Amino acid sequence: MLFAVRMTVSLPPDMDPDARVSTLAAEKEYAQKLQHTGEWLHLWRCAGQYANLSIFDVIDNDRLNELLWGLPLFPYMDITVTPLARHPSAIG
Amino acid sequence: MLFAVRMTVSLPPDMDPDARVSTLAAEKEYAQKLQHTGEWLHLWRCAGQYANLSIFDVIDNDRLNELLWGLPLFPYMDITVTPLARHPSAIG
Amino acid sequence: MLFAVRMTVSLPPDMDPDARVSTLAAEKEYAQKLQHTGEWLHLWRCAGQYANLSIFDVIDNDRLNELLWGLPLFPYMDITVTPLARHPSAIG
Amino acid sequence: MLFAVRMTVSLPPDMDPDARVSTLAAEKEYAQKLQHTGEWLHLWRCAGQYANLSIFDVIDNDRLNELLWGLPLFPYMDITVTPLARHPSAIG
Amino acid sequence: MLFAVRMTVSLPPDMDPDARVSTLAAEKEYAQKLQHTGEWLHLWRCAGQYANLSIFDVIDNDRLNELLWGLPLFPYMDITVTPLARHPSAIG
Amino acid sequence: MLFAVRMTVSLPPDMDPDARVSTLAAEKEYAQKLQHTGEWLHLWRCAGQYANLSIFDVIDNDRLNELLWGLPLFPYMDITVTPLARHPSAIG
Amino acid sequence: MLFAVRMTVSLPPDMDPDARVSTLAAEKEYAQKLQHTGEWLHLWRCAGQYANLSIFDVIDNDRLNELLWGLPLFPYMDITVTPLARHPSAIG
Amino acid sequence: MLFAVRMTVSLPPDMDPDARVSTLAAEKEYAQKLQHTGEWLHLWRCAGQYANLSIFDVIDNDRLNELLWGLPLFPYMDITVTPLARHPSAIG
Amino acid sequence: MLFAVRMTVSLPPDMDPDARVSTLAAEKEYAQKLQHTGEWLHLWRCAGQYANLSIFDVIDNDRLNELLWGLPLFPYMDITVTPLARHPSAIG
Amino acid sequence: MLFAVRMTVSLPPDMDPDARVSTLAAEKEYAQKLQHTGEWLHLWRCAGQYANLSIFDVIDNDRLNELLWGLPLFPYMDITVTPLARHPSAIG
Repeated sequence: MLFAVRMTVSLPPDMDPDARVSTLAAEKEYAQKLQHTGEWLHLWRCAGQYANLSIFDVIDNDRLNELLWGLPLFPYMDITVTPLARHPSAIG
Repeated sequence: MLFAVRMTVSLPPDMDPDARVSTLAAEKEYAQKLQHTGEWLHLWRCAGQYANLSIFDVIDNDRLNELLWGLPLFPYMDITVTPLARHPSAIG
Repeated sequence: MLFAVRMTVSLPPDMDPDARVSTLAAEKEYAQKLQHTGEWLHLWRCAGQYANLSIFDVIDNDRLNELLWGLPLFPYMDITVTPLARHPSAIG
Repeated sequence: MLFAVRMTVSLPPDMDPDARVSTLAAEKEYAQKLQHTGEWLHLWRCAGQYANLSIFDVIDNDRLNELLWGLPLFPYMDITVTPLARHPSAIG
Repeated sequence: MLFAVRMTVSLPPDMDPDARVSTLAAEKEYAQKLQHTGEWLHLWRCAGQYANLSIFDVIDNDRLNELLWGLPLFPYMDITVTPLARHPSAIG
Repeated sequence: MLFAVRMTVSLPPDMDPDARVSTLAAEKEYAQKLQHTGEWLHLWRCAGQYANLSIFDVIDNDRLNELLWGLPLFPYMDITVTPLARHPSAIG
Repeated sequence: MLFAVRMTVSLPPDMDPDARVSTLAAEKEYAQKLQHTGEWLHLWRCAGQYANLSIFDVIDNDRLNELLWGLPLFPYMDITVTPLARHPSAIG
Repeated sequence: MLFAVRMTVSLPPDMDPDARVSTLAAEKEYAQKLQHTGEWLHLWRCAGQYANLSIFDVIDNDRLNELLWGLPLFPYMDITVTPLARHPSAIG
Repeated sequence: MLFAVRMTVSLPPDMDPDARVSTLAAEKEYAQKLQHTGEWLHLWRCAGQYANLSIFDVIDNDRLNELLWGLPLFPYMDITVTPLARHPSAIG
Repeated sequence: MLFAVRMTVSLPPDMDPDARVSTLAAEKEYAQKLQHTGEWLHLWRCAGQYANLSIFDVIDNDRLNELLWGLPLFPYMDITVTPLARHPSAIG
């Protein structure tokens, strides 16, 4: 089941530099692990913004919630979720 | 080059039924042709709304503009466009 | 799987009175049938507004989309969808 | 008398960790107590967001106000309140 | 129990003049009757706008909903509802 | 001359506790004094929010401005002002 | 007593041409008469928009309401009203 | 003196086809004439939308207003205007 | 050439008291000097808000920009600018 | 390929003065270098605001993203991006 998720990140200007580096590294590792398992289907940068558009493929709403709350950057994110369905004009 | 496009459709309640049927058929044919050529990469229904989220893969802004203006439902659509870039955490 | 759905209705002032009566009757029948099958779990009027807040319990996004598109009043509705997950403080 | 309440939580990034833990524990206890008494009828997580959708069943506006102001997380919440009425198409 | 209600009116420019006159007369009679019974506690014009701010004093949400849906101008109104509670600094 | 005023309060989470207590006490005293003189005609809590809806009865805009700037919580408030006029359907 | 008023005009595309001409002429005459009496203190076009920014100098809210409701274009206007007070840094 | 102007066009779906053709032709001629005189400095299509972003180089606000009101599509446009100034980091 | 400018001020609650006093004094002096030279034509308080509505009469956009950037409170202001033109119904 | 980019800057009031000076100098150098290479085609100040409107001429979305993320002020900016296409009425 697919969901479009837009994540916008706001890091505090006075964030501790070490915490920043380690959080960003954890975020990258987390994102790549979920892409390998197939649950994080697409991950695109919104050009020129500290934001991404992602497509998740998960078993249900609870799993989506669990994945997003697990994001190391979650406390610094504004997130919108759009549930997707099959479009009648989609092929394949 | 990828773009996320959200199209929301508002058909006038008093639209001529024949015009409606033929426009919707033309829209479906148009969408499927562009999916086959690869320029309309993804097409998802936003669940419960007369709206879709699409990903286009085009050569440049002019081509994107040409494709969207060519939509048979274009006069009835509200469209937002987000240019996408490669995300540093994306794999593959 | 639960979804909160807010439906706001705008009927055209010049809608044909017979079409209006029959559409509203069909909407009521549709809503009650889905409540009996259990997919339309809750249906509340937003006090003082031509709007409702509903909770749907469906198998997936595709089914939610199918149910909402099937609403007789769908062409006259503005709809927002919020996917719900289990809350860690919820009991029972 | 029912009210839909949406609570969005924003904890300050530099909140004292002990205060955070104790406030969250108090919030959970508070929410569960009111669910047992029946005044907090439903509590759902909005998937992927630090937010919930709740249904309260209270005697009047004053009681609703008292309950919400009593939330341990109240100072960190953005709250919207929608009074609900019986819907003419609701069954049971 | 008090509610603040803001009603904004949009009459269609091509509304039938007789229907307009009779609807406005019915609205005035309706508003005055409810003021006499005490349920429509205050009625103020928002200066320079086709809008009013009203305070209703009703037994519960269902009654508020019934009163507002009964407004002859209801189909032409945009309505917002704010439940009010006793303020700790209010006197008397 | 009447004005509807909506005040929304945002106290900084790290406000000095003593300053907080004394400011809130001053605010209460200020509000009650103006209610006794009749300039602060109504004061209602917006249920579940750190906000109030008030009706002021003042001689002119300058006096309204003076009263609102004098609020001890003024630096922490977001305020909207709506001038009110007599409604043609109001009784009494 | 001064008020800033912003009026945005939306004439229906299918408005009767004669009604349009006569309404615009009446609006102009109305605006100029009130400028001569001094109640309509300033009238500026918002450059490039069918909108104006005006300053009214009236005895009270009721008079402002009366003047604005009397505008021949009132049914086609979206109006916002801002009550003005003397600024402590204003001279003269 | 430069101004950024964004024009969004909404043609009524039931516009007379001949009026539509002649209005669009007049608009094109008008835009090209002003580009040749140098007052309409840049004209770009916002990709995928019935909208453009333009830069005007005019003598003052009155001239900008005159040019925009003269657009054959003006009655069908939503227009925003941003006055531009020299940027301290601009070269040349 | 006239411009309407709305300035909304947000001073940080923890601003140094001396800096606050001296900045406000400098702002007042600056505003009064420009009123005397005639470039700051009108200055009104928006009643009940830390905001003003001003009319500037300047030679061009660059001068307007220079004046507004020079405001001692500029770093604490949210500013909107509306270019004004002569209104065809304005007298005098 | 052209993009319109609007950048709004918010520097923290308590930013270290040296960091501020050096960041602004780096921003200016960065902006001028890209103007010389031709990728930053236009740079205008939005009059009276800490904001600019820019036109970029880049090879693709990835390059635009790279340039904007490289801005020394990027962490303090709110950025909107509009892809531009050739307008059918543009000359030259």
